[in-house]
Amino acid sequence: MAQRGLDALLICTEPEVRYFTGFHTLFWLSPTRPWFVIIPRAGKPVAVIPSIGRSSMAETWIDDIRTWSSPAPEDDGVTLLVETLREIAGRSAGSIGVPMGPETHVRMPAGDFDQLRRDLTGHDFVDATDIVSKLRMIKSEAEIAKVAYICSVVSDAFEGLPQLVSVGDTERQAFAKFRIDILQRGADDVPYLVGSTGLGGFDDIIKTPTDRTIGEGDILLFDTGSVHDGYFSDFDRNFAFGHADDSAKRAYETVWQSTEAGFAAAVPGATTTDVWKAMADVLDAGGSLGNSVGRMGHGLGMQVTEWPSNTATDNTVIEPGMVLTLEPGLTWAPGRMMVHEENIVVREDGAHYLSRRAAPELPIIT
Amino acid sequence: MAQRGLDALLICTEPEVRYFTGFHTLFWLSPTRPWFVIIPRAGKPVAVIPSIGRSSMAETWIDDIRTWSSPAPEDDGVTLLVETLREIAGRSAGSIGVPMGPETHVRMPAGDFDQLRRDLTGHDFVDATDIVSKLRMIKSEAEIAKVAYICSVVSDAFEGLPQLVSVGDTERQAFAKFRIDILQRGADDVPYLVGSTGLGGFDDIIKTPTDRTIGEGDILLFDTGSVHDGYFSDFDRNFAFGHADDSAKRAYETVWQSTEAGFAAAVPGATTTDVWKAMADVLDAGGSLGNSVGRMGHGLGMQVTEWPSNTATDNTVIEPGMVLTLEPGLTWAPGRMMVHEENIVVREDGAHYLSRRAAPELPIIT
Repeated sequence: MAQRGLDALLICTEPEVRYFTGFHTLFWLSPTRPWFVIIPRAGKPVAVIPSIGRSSMAETWIDDIRTWSSPAPEDDGVTLLVETLREIAGRSAGSIGVPMGPETHVRMPAGDFDQLRRDLTGHDFVDATDIVSKLRMIKSEAEIAKVAYICSVVSDAFEGLPQLVSVGDTERQAFAKFRIDILQRGADDVPYLVGSTGLGGFDDIIKTPTDRTIGEGDILLFDTGSVHDGYFSDFDRNFAFGHADDSAKRAYETVWQSTEAGFAAAVPGATTTDVWKAMADVLDAGGSLGNSVGRMGHGLGMQVTEWPSNTATDNTVIEPGMVLTLEPGLTWAPGRMMVHEENIVVREDGAHYLSRRAAPELPIIT
Repeated sequence: MAQRGLDALLICTEPEVRYFTGFHTLFWLSPTRPWFVIIPRAGKPVAVIPSIGRSSMAETWIDDIRTWSSPAPEDDGVTLLVETLREIAGRSAGSIGVPMGPETHVRMPAGDFDQLRRDLTGHDFVDATDIVSKLRMIKSEAEIAKVAYICSVVSDAFEGLPQLVSVGDTERQAFAKFRIDILQRGADDVPYLVGSTGLGGFDDIIKTPTDRTIGEGDILLFDTGSVHDGYFSDFDRNFAFGHADDSAKRAYETVWQSTEAGFAAAVPGATTTDVWKAMADVLDAGGSLGNSVGRMGHGLGMQVTEWPSNTATDNTVIEPGMVLTLEPGLTWAPGRMMVHEENIVVREDGAHYLSRRAAPELPIIT
């Protein structure tokens, strides 16, 4: 903040507030109330929050907690926030950082954010995405342990899936069984579970379940972001029922080999673009018709996806402590998509798997 | 939109996009990619979305789907969105509505939203919260049936809770058992489960579980927003273990009676403020020391909380088809809070319960 000349950093989303304060509640699911934390250039953060959160916030390391009774549509914390920002960033001028760049949003009514900037017209509001993303991209050992734990739980669940899901289940039943199984194995929650089933394959990898019945010759994809103590895993697995044709098997092996290449490339000093290229080269050689995902992996931690992205242009330098997904995907025939995903942590000596490595050949459930 | 002089309505959050298109995916949990739908004054909505969503969006009633490869931090859909808005709202001038008021946020980087408004400098951007909220507040029979179903599932789970949770469980274990039980009874998901335990009571009703062990004399609160086919229930229940003192029992009976008063007041033509006052009067007579929740119930549907709010100043006129929660809460002793919640639908003849009515006396698990 000093380097950037910032007098205050204003944050207002769940992961940002939790990262800096430890405030952890599902209450954010309600869109009604805005929540704010102001980080001064020196000293502890100040919380400006609805009174319903005072008790929970008081259990964190934050001492200075200012509250108002929310919801209050006519002034939902704006006046209190303006006053607190004047106190911290300067009464009539100052530089206030707000994450306003890629993968962020401002979680308050846009009309209120405009009002805030009008009320503090002498202050500069500058994008501070990089300050937050650079901190969050490098995980502590405590953070890595949480991701490792949930990856282990979900790896166990995927290994047990052939005994859990069978031909004759509807998608809805299969999703429900798998979600419950992950919870029974010790996950706190399974907020993200998408997937597809289709005879010979599918072209949609972000679906919620339907009443479609799984049949012989289907391929099943499950992709889950499960949670332990506020930290996510995010990886997928593919299975065939009864049999699979050679082109599907080849597609599976291509994305598996692509993951190997990405894993080898994910060393400190390399970039996310190097990792992307290592994976893309294998997919191209394997006859990829492209893919619609837009990237081949991303950061992982308090959110199911975080900075950086493995893309052709991202160019983020990989550092020890980064937790990443490797997620090569290809369209192997028109309307047929195959995506693999693994979770890794980067150490001084290179990448280590957090998810238990997928089988090298397409598993067939018989 | 015609009355308001709007040429286009721009929406970008999960419930809004799902409401107008039927696009339903958990992929929104990833903060990386923005998604847009533009509703013209006449004709069908137009989707401006990342290519990863084309296949799912094509299964909805939307025909005009424009995509870009995301993530693309340098231009994450802004150029495509500007061009599409010019086409729909007018090339050089027009009025574009965006929900920018209470309980909304703009789910795209704030820097990109500012850029959008600069690029369309001849256009007016006006708050359109009321257009969306007025539509969404009145539920169709199909929507009511979804909420009714999940309320029934969760009512069953709460009735079974005394056989499920016992003294000696940690909070973490109790939460896990209850979450799994609701899923086994048929919920699609339990995204919202908060609560508290404490000897004789507690003052925090939005907590995630800790390793605290439940003991004799504890009171337990569970408040869950569970989901069926994209629609939420949202109600809570309180239980005591072994015994409870008279003041806790009286507090329970006070919020129970307060709910009765709110139920009777929730008739077409009355206002949310009438409902609030009916409940508040009972709490005041019962010796309430106030509460920090800020309201006593709210709308319910695609989100765990929606407009309107039962507050002293909300004054929304209640209409048939509204689905609401009644949520009286009081502080009955310093550091001791008691909150009840039920879900209702308003019909021509008054309120009907969707949740199965709580017991009139504090249930004691022995």
